[in-house]
Amino acid sequence: MHKPQFTRVTAFAPATVANVACAFDVLGFALHQPGDFVTIEAVEKAGIFVKDISGDGGKLPREVEKNTAAIAAREVLRLAGINDYSIEVTIKKEMPLGSGLGSSAASAVAAALAVNHLYGSPLKRADLLPAILEGERIACGAAHADNGAPSLLGGFILIRSYQPLDIVQIKTPNELFAAVVHPDIEIRTEDARRILKRDISMKNAIIQWGNTAGLIAGLLQIDYGLIGRSLQDVIVEPERALLIPGFDAVKKAALSHGALGCSISGSGPSIFCLAQGESTAQHAGAAMAAQFHAIGIGAQVFVSAINETGATITEVQ
Amino acid sequence: MHKPQFTRVTAFAPATVANVACAFDVLGFALHQPGDFVTIEAVEKAGIFVKDISGDGGKLPREVEKNTAAIAAREVLRLAGINDYSIEVTIKKEMPLGSGLGSSAASAVAAALAVNHLYGSPLKRADLLPAILEGERIACGAAHADNGAPSLLGGFILIRSYQPLDIVQIKTPNELFAAVVHPDIEIRTEDARRILKRDISMKNAIIQWGNTAGLIAGLLQIDYGLIGRSLQDVIVEPERALLIPGFDAVKKAALSHGALGCSISGSGPSIFCLAQGESTAQHAGAAMAAQFHAIGIGAQVFVSAINETGATITEVQ
Repeated sequence: MHKPQFTRVTAFAPATVANVACAFDVLGFALHQPGDFVTIEAVEKAGIFVKDISGDGGKLPREVEKNTAAIAAREVLRLAGINDYSIEVTIKKEMPLGSGLGSSAASAVAAALAVNHLYGSPLKRADLLPAILEGERIACGAAHADNGAPSLLGGFILIRSYQPLDIVQIKTPNELFAAVVHPDIEIRTEDARRILKRDISMKNAIIQWGNTAGLIAGLLQIDYGLIGRSLQDVIVEPERALLIPGFDAVKKAALSHGALGCSISGSGPSIFCLAQGESTAQHAGAAMAAQFHAIGIGAQVFVSAINETGATITEVQ
Repeated sequence: MHKPQFTRVTAFAPATVANVACAFDVLGFALHQPGDFVTIEAVEKAGIFVKDISGDGGKLPREVEKNTAAIAAREVLRLAGINDYSIEVTIKKEMPLGSGLGSSAASAVAAALAVNHLYGSPLKRADLLPAILEGERIACGAAHADNGAPSLLGGFILIRSYQPLDIVQIKTPNELFAAVVHPDIEIRTEDARRILKRDISMKNAIIQWGNTAGLIAGLLQIDYGLIGRSLQDVIVEPERALLIPGFDAVKKAALSHGALGCSISGSGPSIFCLAQGESTAQHAGAAMAAQFHAIGIGAQVFVSAINETGATITEVQ
């Protein structure tokens, strides 16, 4: 019989960049910041409850059945065979919602890691992923592991297959940095999905998997030039870029400031670039944000090495 | 002014497996055998001539304008700025034509390497590729570097992009062996191309580039299990397998005898499998051939480590 080993556990789960240009739906990587903190607390009252959410501007649902963090926590307990629990969930969002940075995945990951730790880690870290996907499925209508897996495990994660789920960690070159620019506009994940074509040309598909293969080879053979040449998306970016005002100018600014490549983060509107070295990433990020500012759109910039650790336990009481 | 440095140079270029299941049009690897020998000889009479072709059953054109080896040799001379030449080309085919093993590419590669050596190597090896592609374009109607590049350079070669041509060598795990079974049936490359759909579903394309990424990661992270799980083609193999009698039974035999994965080599009708260790490859290859024999189709088996060297000069006089 599993019982809580602590009174309260807090975990941090980082933002993530999914798709990574050519590798639509199959690749993602983790940043160091921003991210979400989730606290799971053992209480008296039987069941699972959302105690508090901050930093969401009141947008996230407080009902357990609709809350990605609470669902993920409940799924972890179910998978661990724990039916008798009394816990409260507190979510402290320190990243923008609907940004294309894996906001709901970060909440689900932090909740899953925290509740598992509270109960003495009955599940291994990688085995938390199905619970996280279930949380995401509730929040997004579809479960795409390319945010959840890198947020949980860190680094670049390839989702080779969804059925069955096959997760592959890809070693990251040391000097690789990301800049992510989040403009103050909103795109609903569902809208970004709806704009996609159901069928694509074989010609473009071949270009896309050539680039995806090149990106993996560039990462593993530590070839920054190859990483850059491979960061091209001929299928999804041309469609989704239409939803982001200023996209072309932002991308051009990143590349002209030394970025290896630049594309939409997840389903947008955030735009990421990869660069060799932190200062290049900083310059590229600033140049990207300046393009948004020039057309009257506010934008936040996050510059980060690739986060090789993933989610962490930040407080235990 | 470049002049011949020798009287006669012979080169060997190996057979290759292109497509490699999921990586349609973008990946190929070289075998140790079979392959073609091409001799380029300095003669008196100005121009380029096909002196002799053996092993082709009289099927290959003797006219320079239609002969893949002669065209490739002439292109090498043109690229090297040599306009004044007097050479004869002798082709000794030791591999089946129209087999899906890169027969025309092997002839073009051997010719290009031999003529370049004859003239004191004015071009670097990698710079011979455009000449080889020109030779292949004549023979096949289209230039696909996924045979020519591995035959020339050895190992696994990723063609990240065709425009511009971007060739990436992928390090090969030591214990990886291939078995290739060539049934005595003929498929024309053009027919194999014609059967392909022009448009594919996004869903299948995502599965395909997940597998392509997985295959590259498996090769570079030396993960034989991942290589095996990634060797799946949901787009081309289901169409082209229809052209190969017994395909399903042959594939099943390979997998049940320990092969990591199995698919069509190039545009077929040869079928390849990859295996960890030579003896597993031998068993799988024999089991594959037995399935062809069971339905009354003769079949040759070639078992080989991955050829990391590519084409070689075999004789200089």
